[in-house]
Amino acid sequence: MRIAVIGAGYWGPNLIRNLYETRACSEIICCDLDSRKLQKIKDRYPGIQTESQYKKILDRKDVDAVVIATPVSTHFPLGKEILESGKHVFIEKPMTASPEEASELLRLSEKVKRVLMVGHTFEYSPPVIKIKELIDKGELGKIYYISASRVNLGLHQKDVSVIWDLAPHDFSTLFFWLKEQPARVSAIGKACVQKKIPDVAFINLEFPSGCIAHVQVSWLAPSKLRRTAIVGSKKMLVYDDTENIEKVKIYDKGVNYVDPESFGQYQLSYRTGDVVSPRLETYEPLFMEMKHFIECCRENKKPRTDGQSGLRVVRTLDAAERSMRNNSVVVEIPA
Amino acid sequence: MRIAVIGAGYWGPNLIRNLYETRACSEIICCDLDSRKLQKIKDRYPGIQTESQYKKILDRKDVDAVVIATPVSTHFPLGKEILESGKHVFIEKPMTASPEEASELLRLSEKVKRVLMVGHTFEYSPPVIKIKELIDKGELGKIYYISASRVNLGLHQKDVSVIWDLAPHDFSTLFFWLKEQPARVSAIGKACVQKKIPDVAFINLEFPSGCIAHVQVSWLAPSKLRRTAIVGSKKMLVYDDTENIEKVKIYDKGVNYVDPESFGQYQLSYRTGDVVSPRLETYEPLFMEMKHFIECCRENKKPRTDGQSGLRVVRTLDAAERSMRNNSVVVEIPA
Amino acid sequence: MRIAVIGAGYWGPNLIRNLYETRACSEIICCDLDSRKLQKIKDRYPGIQTESQYKKILDRKDVDAVVIATPVSTHFPLGKEILESGKHVFIEKPMTASPEEASELLRLSEKVKRVLMVGHTFEYSPPVIKIKELIDKGELGKIYYISASRVNLGLHQKDVSVIWDLAPHDFSTLFFWLKEQPARVSAIGKACVQKKIPDVAFINLEFPSGCIAHVQVSWLAPSKLRRTAIVGSKKMLVYDDTENIEKVKIYDKGVNYVDPESFGQYQLSYRTGDVVSPRLETYEPLFMEMKHFIECCRENKKPRTDGQSGLRVVRTLDAAERSMRNNSVVVEIPA
Amino acid sequence: MRIAVIGAGYWGPNLIRNLYETRACSEIICCDLDSRKLQKIKDRYPGIQTESQYKKILDRKDVDAVVIATPVSTHFPLGKEILESGKHVFIEKPMTASPEEASELLRLSEKVKRVLMVGHTFEYSPPVIKIKELIDKGELGKIYYISASRVNLGLHQKDVSVIWDLAPHDFSTLFFWLKEQPARVSAIGKACVQKKIPDVAFINLEFPSGCIAHVQVSWLAPSKLRRTAIVGSKKMLVYDDTENIEKVKIYDKGVNYVDPESFGQYQLSYRTGDVVSPRLETYEPLFMEMKHFIECCRENKKPRTDGQSGLRVVRTLDAAERSMRNNSVVVEIPA
Repeated sequence: MRIAVIGAGYWGPNLIRNLYETRACSEIICCDLDSRKLQKIKDRYPGIQTESQYKKILDRKDVDAVVIATPVSTHFPLGKEILESGKHVFIEKPMTASPEEASELLRLSEKVKRVLMVGHTFEYSPPVIKIKELIDKGELGKIYYISASRVNLGLHQKDVSVIWDLAPHDFSTLFFWLKEQPARVSAIGKACVQKKIPDVAFINLEFPSGCIAHVQVSWLAPSKLRRTAIVGSKKMLVYDDTENIEKVKIYDKGVNYVDPESFGQYQLSYRTGDVVSPRLETYEPLFMEMKHFIECCRENKKPRTDGQSGLRVVRTLDAAERSMRNNSVVVEIPA
Repeated sequence: MRIAVIGAGYWGPNLIRNLYETRACSEIICCDLDSRKLQKIKDRYPGIQTESQYKKILDRKDVDAVVIATPVSTHFPLGKEILESGKHVFIEKPMTASPEEASELLRLSEKVKRVLMVGHTFEYSPPVIKIKELIDKGELGKIYYISASRVNLGLHQKDVSVIWDLAPHDFSTLFFWLKEQPARVSAIGKACVQKKIPDVAFINLEFPSGCIAHVQVSWLAPSKLRRTAIVGSKKMLVYDDTENIEKVKIYDKGVNYVDPESFGQYQLSYRTGDVVSPRLETYEPLFMEMKHFIECCRENKKPRTDGQSGLRVVRTLDAAERSMRNNSVVVEIPA
Repeated sequence: MRIAVIGAGYWGPNLIRNLYETRACSEIICCDLDSRKLQKIKDRYPGIQTESQYKKILDRKDVDAVVIATPVSTHFPLGKEILESGKHVFIEKPMTASPEEASELLRLSEKVKRVLMVGHTFEYSPPVIKIKELIDKGELGKIYYISASRVNLGLHQKDVSVIWDLAPHDFSTLFFWLKEQPARVSAIGKACVQKKIPDVAFINLEFPSGCIAHVQVSWLAPSKLRRTAIVGSKKMLVYDDTENIEKVKIYDKGVNYVDPESFGQYQLSYRTGDVVSPRLETYEPLFMEMKHFIECCRENKKPRTDGQSGLRVVRTLDAAERSMRNNSVVVEIPA
Repeated sequence: MRIAVIGAGYWGPNLIRNLYETRACSEIICCDLDSRKLQKIKDRYPGIQTESQYKKILDRKDVDAVVIATPVSTHFPLGKEILESGKHVFIEKPMTASPEEASELLRLSEKVKRVLMVGHTFEYSPPVIKIKELIDKGELGKIYYISASRVNLGLHQKDVSVIWDLAPHDFSTLFFWLKEQPARVSAIGKACVQKKIPDVAFINLEFPSGCIAHVQVSWLAPSKLRRTAIVGSKKMLVYDDTENIEKVKIYDKGVNYVDPESFGQYQLSYRTGDVVSPRLETYEPLFMEMKHFIECCRENKKPRTDGQSGLRVVRTLDAAERSMRNNSVVVEIPA
């Protein structure tokens, strides 16, 4: 496997480090317009090739796959060229800047029969996978609602709102757990620091199953929150990613109907049992993600976070952004 | 002062205990239809009179004021009769079951020149008052947004949604701090346990000043949250009412523009200073509330949480409920 | 049952409230030299008799049992007189001011065949009982060591050191769990605020089984700690009494030997599994304690926290105090 | 500057990384008997030289200084040879395996006029330095006592007890803050997992000033504690190194005497004010430590953590170990 990485800015070096550690690439080529960034990579990994013009990579027949870690607006044109050159492609989240672009890329990947994978990293993280298992086994019962917060001070983006920057993490995670995408979305937001670039947003989601969800995201908050509460008919769960150890806690809690003894109203009784924090694996999600991408390329199989997954996240981001820009009007998402 | 309390259910006994402890009433009369509840009060406070028919209290010339702690639907008819009988009245939150009722009660209280006070208890609590002082002094700068959570397992109400039960606390607190009521409200909710009675809701508020707020309330949640984050242009603050000691924390945090040195884009720099948890008074809010009611009755003055305050909370509850019942459509509130 | 309570100061009213709530006493008599304290009790519980001279109570044939909640120095003379008058006696912790007094009281209670119970309240608390069950079932394996902290700001005593005031809680709890008393004790302490009355102490205990324990107690500390860590050969546990919900956490953690594959040193491997916080009962320990005392009196049976239990705590307090006063010299406690 | 690092095991690579990042060494030579460890260093830092025989380094005139990161028992013989060869030396904590060795090394360094620095890394960490400033400015008043816990599950050492492994951090920090070494030490410990190698210890210290301290260290504990409470006559402080943000909290708390109004006993009143968590610098302590070592070598000046500092820590470790091995007998340390 020969893999190129385009973009050596903030995130690219993390992808390169993990690609390197898989020991599965005979060669890694790093591509960026900024020669200082390339030099940094060289200093750190003397064995890695560098290249300033990505077109050259497209021409190389011996390069099997390309990883894109550039600004969102470039995801679509780059992805398109890469797929058309017959290479597999991994694109950082969000997959594209619009649902139309996402659909086109998905169609193209199917046509050229190449892997299109999107960097929904959380779907490879131990707590998210553990929760997926619990939900799939029915441990929580029917999911009533989910409430998620992802807020902290920094890093303001200059090209996209906080919705496009932070919400992909929560959206991809929610859709992964629930196996559905929302039917209706509304959002309120505010551009506090930079004009016209909202840095706080409160997003409400309704799913076809009846489950509802709330996601709040912000670059401007007093303390870091990475907390998701899931309320099911049997049990409840809190996933707090700021905790070092007990990231997932399962609460054996619920409400039961108590039949009225004689006449009179029914009663509700509250059940409270043990709290269990399950042991979690300790691997790095990004490593698993890169390993999975390489496997999918080798076997030309559909990745867990495929183009379809990327599309539904982009559709929901687009709907939330439109609601926020349009007085919180409810936006329907076609199934 | 002779004061009657109507309603000896869940909340009434707390009001009675605090009225008693003010040592300012020559007599307290407790009124309830349920004789067992009256007996419990008798057991606890042998000096308190009891009465099963509230009409008799209305007839008594020597009773100066009445405190109402009955279900919401009775607040308006009871309040009306009490004011018409020439007595001062204190009504538990929410003041009435509709904005129309609230307006009428407010008009009536002005006409008969009697005190109409509403039980927005949090406006008498030390952390809420401390935060009010900080905001008024400009310590936080301009308030950008507020995010509040009030969730726990229990106590499901059978006559009103979770919005009417829990959101009055947050609404009254927010309006007290911001000195304004929202212009636009939207909400999503779900009836998980009881049919047609939503037990979780996510409410978005927009204020005329541009400040936005999110309030989430639930009777069905894995762990208790009573957390409000306030983000201002100068500082940020977290008020966590589940903390025993450090309920309020002020974060000297913010974002500054850095002028570009030569050509090129501006930069943002993040400022992080000390975190301060100010000392808070330790009195019981309910005691202060009852004391304030007695003072207002004696001096016939307008209470801090007057009918106007009750009206704006009821208007916002009504708007949020309508949005929730009507597919999250945005509801405008007239100024 | 007719029960008298001597001492209506800080703690007495709590005992009276719980005695009252057992509904098991036909009469409760409260005795104190201070008539204002008696009046307060009267105000709160009009049905309770009061008495300023305890001698009169001793003379009353119809009084079955006496509860002592007076300063430590009076525990022995009062307890002695009560037992000699043929009544059962409950004494607040610590049982007496010296091991000699404790032994004599124990002998006397056996001679007169009356109940002698000591107020080691924690042995009636849900988390302590849950931990006892876990240890007895062998869930934690062999107990290696225990480390306990009980510190806060306040309430300085004027007659005894912090060891005699706070350590009885931890000592009684430890001995209850471990079913043994320490063989050797040493302590260091310091009188920071009041001359000659140490307000901080660090106590080391060695048990015959080989288990060791550390107990730190202080009236002068920045924040409240009520934390006990228990390390066993199979599992470990933290009991944090300042937590509202998850007071007990069981950590499935340990160290295993790994046999060397060929030559070479053994390896240690660290095992980390789930963390479980078991559901706890929610009753008030003091209520259970009073209920148990009444049962023991009725059936003339040995209480769970009997004179023997009181004696071993007093012996250990005495040993710790002597070590602290004597340059931390190790003090042996006879079995 | 040419600097050699002897020992590429667990800790050595951290020192190399930070030496490298100072950009102040023209050359770094890494020395270890294990060629695989050297290869790892080579892979990571292609520019670094490696060497399997340390004697060769001693012979090199162009090497200015040597950093020792080998097992404790080798610190003295290596340190001695290095100083005798006319080079500066940095030795990881604890400086030597006995006070005699420490004294001899100290004398030698003075004789040959070369830098002898010991790796008391915490004295270069932002929270420890901030606390030092607060104490020196008198903000806490007179220090009454300090209680420190440093416990976690793992890593058991095979050659030294937990006292020699973990307590150097707390001892060096305490002596740095208090500017004194203890006069008397006692300790209790237990070898739970490995025979004869205690993995838990409770250490009591008495200082000439009257301040007392307790330090507990363990490799076998349910959860990680890195907590130090400092109680002064004016304020109190908690330093919790497991916190990400608020590592230091200053409590404006204390006890005041209240003069009796007329006859009668004095009263104590408890003062509780704000809690402040000061902003801390964010640099890496090890980087500052390496930078300081290089500076001291260049200017041949005495380091902040000099041989004297190393000696007093070793003396106290030795005293604590002897007390623990000898039934907790109190061990005096000569001034």
